[in-house]
Amino acid sequence: MFDSAPHAVILLSGGLDSTVTATLAARQGPIALLHANYGQRTEARERRAFEAVADALNVPLERRRVLDLAFLGALGGNALTDPSIEVPEQEPGAGVPITYVPFRNAHLLAAAVSWAELLGASSVWIGAVEEDSSGYPDCTVAFLRAFESAVRFGTAAGERLRLEAPLVGMSKAEIVRHGLELGAPLEHTWSCYQREERACGRCESCRLRLRAFARAGARDPLPYEE
Amino acid sequence: MFDSAPHAVILLSGGLDSTVTATLAARQGPIALLHANYGQRTEARERRAFEAVADALNVPLERRRVLDLAFLGALGGNALTDPSIEVPEQEPGAGVPITYVPFRNAHLLAAAVSWAELLGASSVWIGAVEEDSSGYPDCTVAFLRAFESAVRFGTAAGERLRLEAPLVGMSKAEIVRHGLELGAPLEHTWSCYQREERACGRCESCRLRLRAFARAGARDPLPYEE
Repeated sequence: MFDSAPHAVILLSGGLDSTVTATLAARQGPIALLHANYGQRTEARERRAFEAVADALNVPLERRRVLDLAFLGALGGNALTDPSIEVPEQEPGAGVPITYVPFRNAHLLAAAVSWAELLGASSVWIGAVEEDSSGYPDCTVAFLRAFESAVRFGTAAGERLRLEAPLVGMSKAEIVRHGLELGAPLEHTWSCYQREERACGRCESCRLRLRAFARAGARDPLPYEE
Repeated sequence: MFDSAPHAVILLSGGLDSTVTATLAARQGPIALLHANYGQRTEARERRAFEAVADALNVPLERRRVLDLAFLGALGGNALTDPSIEVPEQEPGAGVPITYVPFRNAHLLAAAVSWAELLGASSVWIGAVEEDSSGYPDCTVAFLRAFESAVRFGTAAGERLRLEAPLVGMSKAEIVRHGLELGAPLEHTWSCYQREERACGRCESCRLRLRAFARAGARDPLPYEE
């Protein structure tokens, strides 16, 4: 079998948005998947979701990498990596929430871009969502556009390497609908910020997800605590 | 003694440019220093230079951090981290040299920005030099401007966090002169890409450094191989 080089590196946490993004990219040809461990509470569960989604998309092992961002985790100061800060059990309000990991997506994108340069891939994909999301500044169109300029000027690949964020303008409900249409392996995803067996249903990530499935008129395949 | 918060995070490899940059920043108040280990051949020697420069600038231990970029090193494909690729012993020609570590400065800047956000520092400094350098795309003004936009849009700090690259338009000879005027601890720096006891004097980094001291009419305090 002819095994062509991957056209894209996709950042895959194992959550809903990145899984739909990876499914979209996989329809265009072979892909490579990058997952990050930055000391988040639920990393073991996310890692399991990453591998299950990668299996479902038929991505071979040598095209899966895990990036260790221990530095970022050790800085603390946010609810996802700092055990002394509780994960809030409500939808995010205005402003940047306590679950914001400072400039996290810049680290993830930098790693994906470095790998893409080495692989000769022509694009890096991220499942960032600006609307209907947690209000993270590093998920905005403005950030992604600026980062793409940094890639254009700061790499040997230059303009041959594009940044793709196909979901950035979608609502979460649209993402669920789109994922179902594409046949994305949503049953293998994980979104909860604080549990690893059954999703809590109460953290901001669970609330956004549950509302999205409800608005899409679909059933979330994940198990939730009572 | 009143120990005020650092105003700046400085990327300090332990080479000439980053040491002059850190010396400049230290004149404006307390600083924090970030060093990166990305699997480069001479990391042990660079780390020693980093600590010696930090000592000379009176930066306390809790304001020094080492970022482990094993991921970047493991990707390979360049002469600094891949033992199967020889370090070239000539000045760089046109184009991007084989010592280019793909998008390295984006990783370093992302880490410095994350730490600066946590510290409440108002700037991140990098010793990038565009002219009279090795031709790395991630050392250009265009890249740094784009990355600063990414910081403005992609962090909670936003416009409160500036990117400073005070040497970017200088020649290497000007940097040497400037460092000598400032009293920068040039005797503690290390630039050689391939040796750790005496500098080789032949790799592109040694050649640029030696030429800079010669043009500045100064003596390089480092020991060189015969």
